[in-house]
Amino acid sequence: MMSRPSSSASLPAFGHGPHDSSYALLSRRNSEFGSRYIQVDDSGVYLSSLVVTVLVSAIATIGILLFTLVVTLSVMLGSCQGQPIAVSADTHMRAVRSCDSFILNEEVNNVQGWVVSEQCKSHVADYMRGGQYYIDFAGAINAASDYLRTVPAQGDGLDVVVMDIDETALSNMPYYAEHNYGAELFNETVWDEWVYQQKGLPLHATLDLFNQLKDANIGVIFLTGRPENQRNVTSANLIAAGYEGWTELSLRLPGENGMTAIDYKSQRRLQYEKKGYRVWSSLGDQWSDLMGPAAGARTFKLPNPMYYIF
Amino acid sequence: MMSRPSSSASLPAFGHGPHDSSYALLSRRNSEFGSRYIQVDDSGVYLSSLVVTVLVSAIATIGILLFTLVVTLSVMLGSCQGQPIAVSADTHMRAVRSCDSFILNEEVNNVQGWVVSEQCKSHVADYMRGGQYYIDFAGAINAASDYLRTVPAQGDGLDVVVMDIDETALSNMPYYAEHNYGAELFNETVWDEWVYQQKGLPLHATLDLFNQLKDANIGVIFLTGRPENQRNVTSANLIAAGYEGWTELSLRLPGENGMTAIDYKSQRRLQYEKKGYRVWSSLGDQWSDLMGPAAGARTFKLPNPMYYIF
Repeated sequence: MMSRPSSSASLPAFGHGPHDSSYALLSRRNSEFGSRYIQVDDSGVYLSSLVVTVLVSAIATIGILLFTLVVTLSVMLGSCQGQPIAVSADTHMRAVRSCDSFILNEEVNNVQGWVVSEQCKSHVADYMRGGQYYIDFAGAINAASDYLRTVPAQGDGLDVVVMDIDETALSNMPYYAEHNYGAELFNETVWDEWVYQQKGLPLHATLDLFNQLKDANIGVIFLTGRPENQRNVTSANLIAAGYEGWTELSLRLPGENGMTAIDYKSQRRLQYEKKGYRVWSSLGDQWSDLMGPAAGARTFKLPNPMYYIF
Repeated sequence: MMSRPSSSASLPAFGHGPHDSSYALLSRRNSEFGSRYIQVDDSGVYLSSLVVTVLVSAIATIGILLFTLVVTLSVMLGSCQGQPIAVSADTHMRAVRSCDSFILNEEVNNVQGWVVSEQCKSHVADYMRGGQYYIDFAGAINAASDYLRTVPAQGDGLDVVVMDIDETALSNMPYYAEHNYGAELFNETVWDEWVYQQKGLPLHATLDLFNQLKDANIGVIFLTGRPENQRNVTSANLIAAGYEGWTELSLRLPGENGMTAIDYKSQRRLQYEKKGYRVWSSLGDQWSDLMGPAAGARTFKLPNPMYYIF
């Protein structure tokens, strides 16, 4: 039996009790609290209440911090994995793939007379708003631009390109954003109100091509399905969008209302050829802008997954 | 000053020293180890070495576990975020978007005479192998199928659909898998070797349509750019793939070698119409299968981002 009347607290060390070197640490000998003697084992550790408090607090703090970290990381991991690999990922992927397929097949005219389906309406909206539409559009205009650079224009004002207006020279995105990007049936009255507002936006790739053609002495004939009584608003909208100095602006006469777009546009192109114009190319977002006679040596299909016109 | 000669170890409690109720816990009074007396503060805690060992071990274990968990979660989070949102994600997305744009614009014939670029070759390979090709292909065949159901066939064997063979009725995917999915220049000798192996695979959507047409008394005329001297191997490959009972198999004669695909195929179709056939539709993976006279009321463009034929 050993007695150490002057010993005091020491930090806990693995197993074998206090050593002399640690005696001074946190010693409270002669403190204001009284002191007493207790019987201890040879290998025990005595901790003052302050040390216990500090230790327990430290452990608790570290524990809380680690716990918080674990929870935070788990939540981050969950949200990170949750987005692309959600429970419905497979269904979602199938919908995306079949809506991608819809876009490809409507663009090559395999499917005709369609209205954007419920299934694909958000996909079409994403395509239009997310930038892919403009990338595809620019790709088409670049191809047209490359071809039209090879045209041997004679400088007599008779070399022309025939261009559609809506979704070709002017974008009606604000209108279609309000009408489900095509996923609702066309309402002519509401559409006409939009046309009279003259708020169609320039499609900059087309505007650049338009100016390139002017510089190359190639004229542009705008050929639109819009009716003749919208000539002034259409002209004003084109000018506001930056188009200046087109060769002709062709609108549908009352007598041409019953015709399909293909017939109306083909006949107009034939009339222009009769006048002496050389139509090198046709550009449009609809196949009805590009089919039939006198469409030129090359035609260029601009993307439009929102609506289809016969 | 108080003396407690018989006191022993107790678990640490916040602050205020041992209580009688905890004395018995882990008591080692009269143990084989000797005991001694130490001077203690009124509010201290005495821990035996076993308790200290257990406590420290427990804290260490929990600490290690939590640390491991934090590291694991961090690594998982890192790899989760690393894949889609990598440093080069923006560059990658731009490449994907412009390769998607290439596919759309080559499919609508805006770009012509192309060879798959270095930039897009892995994208085209993914498109072909990843299933989107077959989804798009089936979408095109479904559209054709829907249209051809409306044809009023007369049952005299003269109602026909004109179909291309390669990438329309037969898939040459094994060949193109070995030749970079089109991202290398066409080698006619190597291609001919492949043709003689008769390993073209059935495109099942087309085979289903072929059988649907047979049931509806609509014949199929296969019209291919393959040369006449490949008649037997081509015929054998079609039969091996499941096609049985076509109306005509039309191959290119030596005299037609200099012609463009459009001219050769148009002239053949006109010859068939002269014979009395009614061509309702043309199907092919190339625009040269679908352009020119006598292609029918509707044509269907099957996807093929691997090669382009004039």
